[in-house]
Amino acid sequence: MTVPLFETLLRDQAIETLLGDAALARSMVTVEAALARVQGRLGVIPPAAAAAIDQACADFTPDLAGLRQGMAEAAVPVPALVKQLRARVAGDAADHVHWGATSQDIVDTALILQLRLVMEELTVRLDRLIAALAKFAEHERATLTIARTRGQQALPTSLGLKAAAWLTPLVRHRRRLAGLLPRVLMLQLGGAAGTLAAFGPRGLEVARALADELGLDLPPMPWHGQRDGLVELSGWLALITMSLGKLGQDVLLLAQNEVGELREAAGGGSSTMPHKANPIRAEALITLARRNATAQAGMLQAGLAAFERDGAAWQLEWATLPGMATATGAALALAEQLMSGLVVERPRIAANLAATRGLLLAEAASFALAPRLGRAKAEAAVRAACQALAAQPDAKLADILADRLGPLLDWAALCEPASYLGAADAMLDQVLSEAQAVLAGESASW
Amino acid sequence: MTVPLFETLLRDQAIETLLGDAALARSMVTVEAALARVQGRLGVIPPAAAAAIDQACADFTPDLAGLRQGMAEAAVPVPALVKQLRARVAGDAADHVHWGATSQDIVDTALILQLRLVMEELTVRLDRLIAALAKFAEHERATLTIARTRGQQALPTSLGLKAAAWLTPLVRHRRRLAGLLPRVLMLQLGGAAGTLAAFGPRGLEVARALADELGLDLPPMPWHGQRDGLVELSGWLALITMSLGKLGQDVLLLAQNEVGELREAAGGGSSTMPHKANPIRAEALITLARRNATAQAGMLQAGLAAFERDGAAWQLEWATLPGMATATGAALALAEQLMSGLVVERPRIAANLAATRGLLLAEAASFALAPRLGRAKAEAAVRAACQALAAQPDAKLADILADRLGPLLDWAALCEPASYLGAADAMLDQVLSEAQAVLAGESASW
Amino acid sequence: MTVPLFETLLRDQAIETLLGDAALARSMVTVEAALARVQGRLGVIPPAAAAAIDQACADFTPDLAGLRQGMAEAAVPVPALVKQLRARVAGDAADHVHWGATSQDIVDTALILQLRLVMEELTVRLDRLIAALAKFAEHERATLTIARTRGQQALPTSLGLKAAAWLTPLVRHRRRLAGLLPRVLMLQLGGAAGTLAAFGPRGLEVARALADELGLDLPPMPWHGQRDGLVELSGWLALITMSLGKLGQDVLLLAQNEVGELREAAGGGSSTMPHKANPIRAEALITLARRNATAQAGMLQAGLAAFERDGAAWQLEWATLPGMATATGAALALAEQLMSGLVVERPRIAANLAATRGLLLAEAASFALAPRLGRAKAEAAVRAACQALAAQPDAKLADILADRLGPLLDWAALCEPASYLGAADAMLDQVLSEAQAVLAGESASW
Amino acid sequence: MTVPLFETLLRDQAIETLLGDAALARSMVTVEAALARVQGRLGVIPPAAAAAIDQACADFTPDLAGLRQGMAEAAVPVPALVKQLRARVAGDAADHVHWGATSQDIVDTALILQLRLVMEELTVRLDRLIAALAKFAEHERATLTIARTRGQQALPTSLGLKAAAWLTPLVRHRRRLAGLLPRVLMLQLGGAAGTLAAFGPRGLEVARALADELGLDLPPMPWHGQRDGLVELSGWLALITMSLGKLGQDVLLLAQNEVGELREAAGGGSSTMPHKANPIRAEALITLARRNATAQAGMLQAGLAAFERDGAAWQLEWATLPGMATATGAALALAEQLMSGLVVERPRIAANLAATRGLLLAEAASFALAPRLGRAKAEAAVRAACQALAAQPDAKLADILADRLGPLLDWAALCEPASYLGAADAMLDQVLSEAQAVLAGESASW
Repeated sequence: MTVPLFETLLRDQAIETLLGDAALARSMVTVEAALARVQGRLGVIPPAAAAAIDQACADFTPDLAGLRQGMAEAAVPVPALVKQLRARVAGDAADHVHWGATSQDIVDTALILQLRLVMEELTVRLDRLIAALAKFAEHERATLTIARTRGQQALPTSLGLKAAAWLTPLVRHRRRLAGLLPRVLMLQLGGAAGTLAAFGPRGLEVARALADELGLDLPPMPWHGQRDGLVELSGWLALITMSLGKLGQDVLLLAQNEVGELREAAGGGSSTMPHKANPIRAEALITLARRNATAQAGMLQAGLAAFERDGAAWQLEWATLPGMATATGAALALAEQLMSGLVVERPRIAANLAATRGLLLAEAASFALAPRLGRAKAEAAVRAACQALAAQPDAKLADILADRLGPLLDWAALCEPASYLGAADAMLDQVLSEAQAVLAGESASW
Repeated sequence: MTVPLFETLLRDQAIETLLGDAALARSMVTVEAALARVQGRLGVIPPAAAAAIDQACADFTPDLAGLRQGMAEAAVPVPALVKQLRARVAGDAADHVHWGATSQDIVDTALILQLRLVMEELTVRLDRLIAALAKFAEHERATLTIARTRGQQALPTSLGLKAAAWLTPLVRHRRRLAGLLPRVLMLQLGGAAGTLAAFGPRGLEVARALADELGLDLPPMPWHGQRDGLVELSGWLALITMSLGKLGQDVLLLAQNEVGELREAAGGGSSTMPHKANPIRAEALITLARRNATAQAGMLQAGLAAFERDGAAWQLEWATLPGMATATGAALALAEQLMSGLVVERPRIAANLAATRGLLLAEAASFALAPRLGRAKAEAAVRAACQALAAQPDAKLADILADRLGPLLDWAALCEPASYLGAADAMLDQVLSEAQAVLAGESASW
Repeated sequence: MTVPLFETLLRDQAIETLLGDAALARSMVTVEAALARVQGRLGVIPPAAAAAIDQACADFTPDLAGLRQGMAEAAVPVPALVKQLRARVAGDAADHVHWGATSQDIVDTALILQLRLVMEELTVRLDRLIAALAKFAEHERATLTIARTRGQQALPTSLGLKAAAWLTPLVRHRRRLAGLLPRVLMLQLGGAAGTLAAFGPRGLEVARALADELGLDLPPMPWHGQRDGLVELSGWLALITMSLGKLGQDVLLLAQNEVGELREAAGGGSSTMPHKANPIRAEALITLARRNATAQAGMLQAGLAAFERDGAAWQLEWATLPGMATATGAALALAEQLMSGLVVERPRIAANLAATRGLLLAEAASFALAPRLGRAKAEAAVRAACQALAAQPDAKLADILADRLGPLLDWAALCEPASYLGAADAMLDQVLSEAQAVLAGESASW
Repeated sequence: MTVPLFETLLRDQAIETLLGDAALARSMVTVEAALARVQGRLGVIPPAAAAAIDQACADFTPDLAGLRQGMAEAAVPVPALVKQLRARVAGDAADHVHWGATSQDIVDTALILQLRLVMEELTVRLDRLIAALAKFAEHERATLTIARTRGQQALPTSLGLKAAAWLTPLVRHRRRLAGLLPRVLMLQLGGAAGTLAAFGPRGLEVARALADELGLDLPPMPWHGQRDGLVELSGWLALITMSLGKLGQDVLLLAQNEVGELREAAGGGSSTMPHKANPIRAEALITLARRNATAQAGMLQAGLAAFERDGAAWQLEWATLPGMATATGAALALAEQLMSGLVVERPRIAANLAATRGLLLAEAASFALAPRLGRAKAEAAVRAACQALAAQPDAKLADILADRLGPLLDWAALCEPASYLGAADAMLDQVLSEAQAVLAGESASW
């Protein structure tokens, strides 16, 4: 179960609708109809029966209460669905409903059709987010700020490059889709034992035609007990939320009052503290990432299906995958909201950098000095200057180095953060170019 | 999200009701009312305001849509609840609604009150299941059957002892509650920073009185960032489903056609195979066990709350714990159904044992021979006899041993399964006695 | 596998020694010797044989290479151990080595004996850490600092109370042991099918005597397929690392340069940045917490043992539990090091608090104003003052409130952090008292 | 930690050697040498210094004890390595060791070089296993056997098709590599903040040249905080073990005495039961699958790296990934051993099929009858016949159908399992053809 009130920020109405009971029921009907049409065309069932079934399916909304009752009795909703469908078709044609298929054929294929729509929606959102991050990164290309490693201030960087680090994995995730989708969007059709026996001699033809009819790929044999496609898919979902969780965590950390460099435009209020604005989207991105990380272990456990088909493993998949898809949808939506309302506190960013008084340029000074003093002496000299800096709250590293070492180098220029950005700009160009390419559908260079 | 149609067997209406939105909303109101009453009594707020708030709460059903909207804005539902409540109380008294508390005080305490009801329900079910298993074990005390280890037939045992192995962990789980519950059923009250500052000088008195009012324990300080109680609870839930998953797995394996010793009275039907009856409750127990095993990792991750209170970690707990409780409720209900309809196929059990032709007594023969031949020779002799048995499909191990070794021992008696049950009966007595003791509320010997 | 170079900080030599191959081999010998002694005393095997076995075991160090070879062949090390032991005992007595027991009896009991030593060591460390945290908390009782919630500054608190929040769960973990240990430190003895059949009519007496001999509890039946004791234990280990992970995370966050309130005395250096000191123990505590959180899911999966004994599930336990114990030992050691070298940057703490310019007292002002203005107006007034404060970088909240509202209240006193600590001191007393009680072995009040 | 004696079957010496301390130390030296060569060529450091460093690295075996000591102090082994290397290079050239790089550049790139070798080895094993399974599947093409679904006998199939179901996911895993590897085998080079600042104006050139030098891909920016490549890799490892776990589980179930259709040639012996042969490789495959499934959650949690570089997350990766690679290596080796020694018990397979007395053809009969009686009546008639069959232990379904329905159909032919294999053969051809294609390096049709 989920508690909607608790999970308000963690849910996604659009994805839930695509994967909900009504959509599943309709999708199963779609599969039964397509199966009948195809079998009618191939003469596996009488064409007239096929037409009757197809017509009956066209505007059929299954009775959900009946399906749930059937599910409670059979641990699969298809017998109840078939019963409803036969009652609707009536006459001799009813006999040819669900001809030759097994329950798992219908449920798996129906789910794949639903997941196709989900993936389309997620892809649209991912593309929008890529575009938003690219725009933000470009916009902040020249915003000098502090890179932090292991929780500590390290060197200068640009906010644009920080955003590029959020963007780059998303571009790779986008590229992963090309390899992934054909392994997921596969027809399931095998009949009870996966041999297509009940379809008679034309089983493979039925399978090929049904795959074409539904626009799905046809695997070399049914995948009732081979769940690697779905597990690869859920792994991709968990990668997406993982990368967005990193974005959320960075924003949360950069929004701490003591850092104050970023802020959610519409932060969450407190029930008792008038001064607070909580980074609620950033938090939710972290939550969703850790949620999906956990859930993926369940998908992998579910992959140990026993024999030709395994009910326990299959239900574990059902209990896991839809929530992962929704979480991913919610994370993409939240990330887009977050980026669209992200306030860059420029004065604070500048102040934080200034407050380091050149300390972040310690490495730069050390490298610049090395040719003069040798590296060991250079590092020792800079380390001593850093310690002296701590004791002189009004000095800058450049001053102290000048005091201690004389005019060996242009200390002021050396300790200018903007002069120590390395290839930040060029790398940002590379990232943006990759992002453009992936949005334009071009093939990747990595 | 969950797909109800998929999770029909995995859900539990009663537990979901106890943990659902409406129950949460009401429980929060209960906490606000109790807080007001206590503060009125202690003079922290005006007694008249307290009475007005208490009365307004008495029959107040919060507007859920409003709470969800508030949740979406603040990532916590309390500001919206307080707003609704103040509107209802009106007048000056409204100012004293939620006096001194923080959102997390209300949500955590409300959840604890709900969990207390959930635990009561789970305990009732656990006790019923313990009783049912004890009855089954007693009933099958004399049913000789095969013990299997590492997937292979091992020695004779009784079906009663098999059931005792399902029962014993449940008895231990029941005993675990005594230690666990006081660490879970704790009041949460600390105010925004956990210092009780907004309650003025009488903060600790308010906390003590509120704990008494709600029948909860009072921890030495608030547990906003100390989630060990809830994680211990969810660990207990996962232990329950784990033990029931083992029961389900054993039943599933013993219900295989080739074994056929147990059968669910009302098995699930197939959409295409007229001859099938699927062990759907056994499957669902496995599913629920693996589901909760996975989810417990999420609870433990959520325990790394940062600072005084952590929104991301908290929401991960919300996204995890309710589903674990429901899964446990469903598993207990399914296990009870399973046991109440479990068919013991006595002829098949006897036939399976007979089909081993004494092979399971190989160890017995080996031990009986050891004093005569020395252990190494005894084991070798028995191993050779076992190999010979494989080549003589109509012989029994007793015959072959007699042939090869002469009348050294009473081979027929030795190879009688019933004579090699060791302490099975005495251990069953011990287990049943422990079960009786725990149901009677007595203290444990282990 | 583990890469020692990578896991240097994550390992624990003492715990690894207690759980390593040599210790396991010796522990198995200890069990075989005790089994022989007990059986000799009860006349199940000849007393002379028992004495010979006991003597042979006394100073026997099994050949590990031989055990590993045996493990590779049988997936359990006991057949090879028994072979080595029989060769050493020689003569007729050799026949009575391992009399009646199954491999799992020996391995499980041996592991329990090892875990008893591990738990003793962990308890000693936990007690030391509790004492260290209690001392730190007492020492920092009067250190005013900032409470942070959802990543944002909230209200004043004391550093002592912050430390009390790290300490309190550890006190509860210490109390959990009393309930837990008897369910873990149980003899395993059942013979091949768990019926004690091979021990003859005195099986239960052997089990009782062996439990006494080894100082273990005796469960009502063997627990070959009932792993709840070990899973409860590993759950406790994961709770410990979870709580220490929260400590590590808080320290890491408080050690950020922009916060700078705490610092590891001996931070880790950088290969290239002369100015850095990394919070390496705090990091490792987080790592170990997330590692054990993940691993506990494996223990719960392993609990689904099939039939009377299950090799696949058992090996999963072996692959999971020792690493969790070591991680817990490492975490306790690291936390002790961390606390012993934790530098409290008092000037920085004071400066951070001062830099809030009274903003943290917004709630206090709001509550103080409420009786004058009504709560809504009070909150609005304070909120407006907070916004004004942001625009006046040199003002304090007290000044602004005085300007805007006049001398309604003693604004300066009201905005003094020390005056808004609520029950922080009293709660700290409660926590310290609980810590003392648990260290003194007294029973708990919660 | 791992307990080698426990994990004998779960380890892999070859993979452990590739990932062990010595290999890591050497790989880091390789990266430092290549960096110096490239920088010498580009004039970033003096060519003579580059040559001296390169030469010093050529046959340098770092002192592991020193690296571990350094790791304990810095939580990264590179400062100690650099110190050792500088001591060895000596003179002015020593200053140019590790010029411009950060520790994570060296460790990450070193690990990638090691993982490349690991992946080569795993791929070789995977190809061998694909070939072995293809051969087995072809060999068992005509072996009629029982398909089982939800633990129950379902329909006839061929053992060849069963093996094809083990094979097909492996073929897909093989294809996944093509997309995956370029996203994993990436150079890590960014310097302390990921800007390449310390390399001066030629940073990007250095990165490009170093990628070429090491045969790695060059990402558009460093991936210090973007761990998706490694998490995708570990996800692939978990997919491999998952699919092999399914193989192990099927073999374990088919090797149960009551089924007896497959058997490991060299099963594991028991310490007390002379008659047992345990399916130890099948068990270990299940263990490894569930182990890696659990561990993948840890990798995904580790992906939430904070800021530019995150020590806690990085160490969690170190504590997780090597074990997953070893487990995968072990699983591939065990699966190969398992297949090479898998005994097909043909008489037993035939006997099991015969013992169903035609029940598996219930669906076939139902479909054959449907055109005559209508489907509902046909199903009812067959269901009644199935029930009658249960009561007549010597009859076959064909006899009962003939008795009850007369010579409507050729019942004997209809109930011949071989006549109801559907497209099993044709699908097997498709699978084998895909396997051949992947082994031949051809592109896939799915």
